[in-house]
Amino acid sequence: MAPDEELKQKIIAQGDFVRQLKSKADATEDDKKLAIELLKSLKLEYKELTGKEYDGGAQARPQKEKQVQQANVGKAQEAKKQTKLGIETPKGVNYSDWYSQVITKAEMIEYYDVSGCYVLRPWSYAIWEKIQEFFDREIKKLGVKNCYFPMFVSHAALEREKTHIADFAPEVAWVTRAGNSEMAEPIAIRPTSETVMYPSFAKWVQSHRDLPIKVNQWCNVVRWEFKHPTPFLRTREFLWQEGHTAFQTRAEAEEEVFKILDLYAQIYTDLLAIPVVKGRKSEKEKFAGGDFTTTVEAYVAVNGRGIQGATSHHLGQNFSKMFEIIFEDPENPGQKVYAHQNSWGLSTRTIGAMVMIHGDDNGLVLPPKVAAVQMIVIPVGITANTSDEQRVQLLAKVKEITDVLVNAGIRAESDVRDNVSPGWKFNHWELKGVPVRIEVGPKDLAKNEVLTVQRFSGQKRGIPIPNIVDESKKLLEDIHKDMYNKQVEVRDAHLKLCLDWKDFVALLDGKNLLLSPFCGLPECEEKIKADSAREEPGEAGTSAMGAKSLCIPLEQPKHELPERCIHPPCKEKAKFFALFGRSY
Amino acid sequence: MAPDEELKQKIIAQGDFVRQLKSKADATEDDKKLAIELLKSLKLEYKELTGKEYDGGAQARPQKEKQVQQANVGKAQEAKKQTKLGIETPKGVNYSDWYSQVITKAEMIEYYDVSGCYVLRPWSYAIWEKIQEFFDREIKKLGVKNCYFPMFVSHAALEREKTHIADFAPEVAWVTRAGNSEMAEPIAIRPTSETVMYPSFAKWVQSHRDLPIKVNQWCNVVRWEFKHPTPFLRTREFLWQEGHTAFQTRAEAEEEVFKILDLYAQIYTDLLAIPVVKGRKSEKEKFAGGDFTTTVEAYVAVNGRGIQGATSHHLGQNFSKMFEIIFEDPENPGQKVYAHQNSWGLSTRTIGAMVMIHGDDNGLVLPPKVAAVQMIVIPVGITANTSDEQRVQLLAKVKEITDVLVNAGIRAESDVRDNVSPGWKFNHWELKGVPVRIEVGPKDLAKNEVLTVQRFSGQKRGIPIPNIVDESKKLLEDIHKDMYNKQVEVRDAHLKLCLDWKDFVALLDGKNLLLSPFCGLPECEEKIKADSAREEPGEAGTSAMGAKSLCIPLEQPKHELPERCIHPPCKEKAKFFALFGRSY
Repeated sequence: MAPDEELKQKIIAQGDFVRQLKSKADATEDDKKLAIELLKSLKLEYKELTGKEYDGGAQARPQKEKQVQQANVGKAQEAKKQTKLGIETPKGVNYSDWYSQVITKAEMIEYYDVSGCYVLRPWSYAIWEKIQEFFDREIKKLGVKNCYFPMFVSHAALEREKTHIADFAPEVAWVTRAGNSEMAEPIAIRPTSETVMYPSFAKWVQSHRDLPIKVNQWCNVVRWEFKHPTPFLRTREFLWQEGHTAFQTRAEAEEEVFKILDLYAQIYTDLLAIPVVKGRKSEKEKFAGGDFTTTVEAYVAVNGRGIQGATSHHLGQNFSKMFEIIFEDPENPGQKVYAHQNSWGLSTRTIGAMVMIHGDDNGLVLPPKVAAVQMIVIPVGITANTSDEQRVQLLAKVKEITDVLVNAGIRAESDVRDNVSPGWKFNHWELKGVPVRIEVGPKDLAKNEVLTVQRFSGQKRGIPIPNIVDESKKLLEDIHKDMYNKQVEVRDAHLKLCLDWKDFVALLDGKNLLLSPFCGLPECEEKIKADSAREEPGEAGTSAMGAKSLCIPLEQPKHELPERCIHPPCKEKAKFFALFGRSY
Repeated sequence: MAPDEELKQKIIAQGDFVRQLKSKADATEDDKKLAIELLKSLKLEYKELTGKEYDGGAQARPQKEKQVQQANVGKAQEAKKQTKLGIETPKGVNYSDWYSQVITKAEMIEYYDVSGCYVLRPWSYAIWEKIQEFFDREIKKLGVKNCYFPMFVSHAALEREKTHIADFAPEVAWVTRAGNSEMAEPIAIRPTSETVMYPSFAKWVQSHRDLPIKVNQWCNVVRWEFKHPTPFLRTREFLWQEGHTAFQTRAEAEEEVFKILDLYAQIYTDLLAIPVVKGRKSEKEKFAGGDFTTTVEAYVAVNGRGIQGATSHHLGQNFSKMFEIIFEDPENPGQKVYAHQNSWGLSTRTIGAMVMIHGDDNGLVLPPKVAAVQMIVIPVGITANTSDEQRVQLLAKVKEITDVLVNAGIRAESDVRDNVSPGWKFNHWELKGVPVRIEVGPKDLAKNEVLTVQRFSGQKRGIPIPNIVDESKKLLEDIHKDMYNKQVEVRDAHLKLCLDWKDFVALLDGKNLLLSPFCGLPECEEKIKADSAREEPGEAGTSAMGAKSLCIPLEQPKHELPERCIHPPCKEKAKFFALFGRSY
């Protein structure tokens, strides 16, 4: 199907869905809004793709319906506060719908009127801040310093490294006008900053004593992709950090590549409770213009896809040759040497991976280490019979407990709103993924304890108030471990050794990642991808795309490497086991 | 003079300067590079303004000169490491040249090949990080949460508030192309985010219980100005924070405006050691579309100009009406109320103000609170007669002292390079503005002390090693106070009460800021500006621009307010004293 036709079908389907919702008495206002937002974003995409407004639905919708629709909106608004706020589509039924609902209802994302761009609300941005805190501290220990290079790139600088720009050119956004004046020369917005930074590096390096250079920036970048955008996972503007370093020797540079990779792995395992496989990218998948790329790859169970977590590239001397980052060899006076460079980046995509991997049918599940709120304290058991004095006492206790936790360094908050019920609050904070709910009621207080309810497992446990700090800290640690261990189990169950091509596609369809012998050649990888694609998407939106190599794991399977590459027509020897999978 | 003609003159002058430098035997390679960079940036500006390459100089430069130039470059490269690294133009002689030299030689800024854009190197970015640390912590205490809104704005959203966009439209950069495809509709890059954020605010506010909203983002913005750019002070892309809040009542909003203003004042006084005047902006100078703007204004002695430090705006209900940020009045059911809004921002311009205000003829002078390195420890007194053992001991002591300071939370570093002399290091760190140099030499060690040298005052003092932590902390505190007090003195000496128009221009020319009675009307302010402009720039590049009102100080002078406005033709009554000055 042509891309515009495909999009048209999606718009029609989404339009139908919106109309259904509008006629359903029990549909919430939020659901309708969300559905309409999605419809709008599809239409925007259509307009961008075709250059004209979508009008396919105009004649199909009778005039009468508009009136009905307006009447319904009125009714829905009245009913607003009574409707439930939960997720309406189970993760396993349609994970793409589920994802949209979770990120909007949990207040992570707000849709926006420029296609491919999304608002990161405080609830998701706080996760980014936790990641920043950790990584920024760690790279500073390695001597990396933060800086800021311009967002704009001149045409000349952008095109300096040919392989590199060939990869990025189709997605580069160009500024051509300022106010009412056309610019003499269009200026690009950085898709990444190699070509922005390295002319400066060339100026700074006059001698080997000016090395190493180790800089990093936290910034936005723009890649104007034309594929269907997804919040966090594929967006036209995104936030990331990009580290750029230059060394005197290749050995130093290589050492750093792997140190950074370890930090990236730690962000996944220690903060986000997600196991990753460390590896190298194949020649086909590596960073354009670099020598080799290392990566951490995670597994998304719901659709069986791999997701690239972050990449750390060794650029070799390719860029230093193009940009003349050069110094005199201290060992061989008179001899010029090009610097050995790395670049490495991690983006807000991490947050999308976290949502997809940990979320469940009740909404978001936040790993404790990155949750903006780790514990939410809620007063319960207030009835019509509760005296004013009891109420005041209870609320005072809620405040006291929250303060004790906050003072102990736990991110705790209380929810003492009196216009919503405890049940409503339970659902609200569950949807938002807060790791632990603490219920404080008269009965618990009588026993001098509180009830803790874990978001991840649903487990309930009473905790004596005098031990609350220690027990809470332990609880948060345990939740982290449990979440991580569960994902290790899930991932390992879907990590299959595949030695025979005839099992390959069936295993992929079983939502597995495959460890298979591979020659490593780009042409062969191209063919593996083509031959593992299915014609039609599967149920629940399972992808039909072909497999690519996610990485060549640093830790190779114990199994002996077979003689030949997995792909039957390939006449090459297998060089290593590669991890194959459908992927984001 | 027409802008292009003016630019041409500048290019010719700069070209002459470059040629002079090239023929001077004692000109450093760095100076030449800098001068050439400036020349290039002027030419780029010319090209942008006129749409054609500057070629005015082509015929004027004889062929022969090129050869001479090349020969000189060769020589200069050989001589490179021997040349001195200091500032060559005293601040008082040509502050604009001085500024360029300081920011480049102190490694704050690298020039860049897109006009109006500059690289913030780690040495300046670290100052920004210190400011971020303070402000971020303080606004979080006020309940503000960080978030991230897209950089791109649709045409429709941008144009929603008319007064607002009228002010920004001439400087908006437009993206019109992605890869090779023209976009169906051009997309703007945010010059500020009111119109980006408020459509979301409208969605989030359904009831008074959804208020207040308090969000902030640390991001880049773009204002494509056509005036001559200056690093930090006027750049086309800059970094800032922008806070956006919405309240139920005007009183709450107004309270916050001034709380934020106090934090901005603290950044200047407590971190940057710069006194500021807090005030309101006049109608002419306030934020377009807002109700009123508050500001902190600093004084730059070298040219007698005022500089706006940061602004906190009360937007009233203007934007909430345009964007329909509306809720039902809880006191009057059925009645709709528009939210009361603020926005407030502080940018990397702060760093430029700091450089201009504290820097001296020897380079940068960093206030201790924001210095990336507060103390630099340098071994001295190593001679040809020093034994290897003595050397090792000395270096061990340098390391020990540095470690002790770092462990006490002082940002100390040591410079133990063996390829440059202590004298070279003194100059280097002086140029970079490090507040305290600690010299560790055999003679001092014999007395169990070290020598401290203050960058700001040049004062030298021995400190017993056992007291080094306490004494160092006190020293840094004292330096901060001394720097601040000096600037208060300088500023106060140039803050003149001016009650008679016939003194007005002379006082301005005397590099003063003036407190004068003012009617507050935009037309009158326009005339004051026109009538206080001189035709020609003064010596040392003193500005010829007219005065504008910097602010209406919150704390008014004790002097009784005269009956009439300062400007003779004005028939209005004076409403308040306003602070007038030439300004950035």
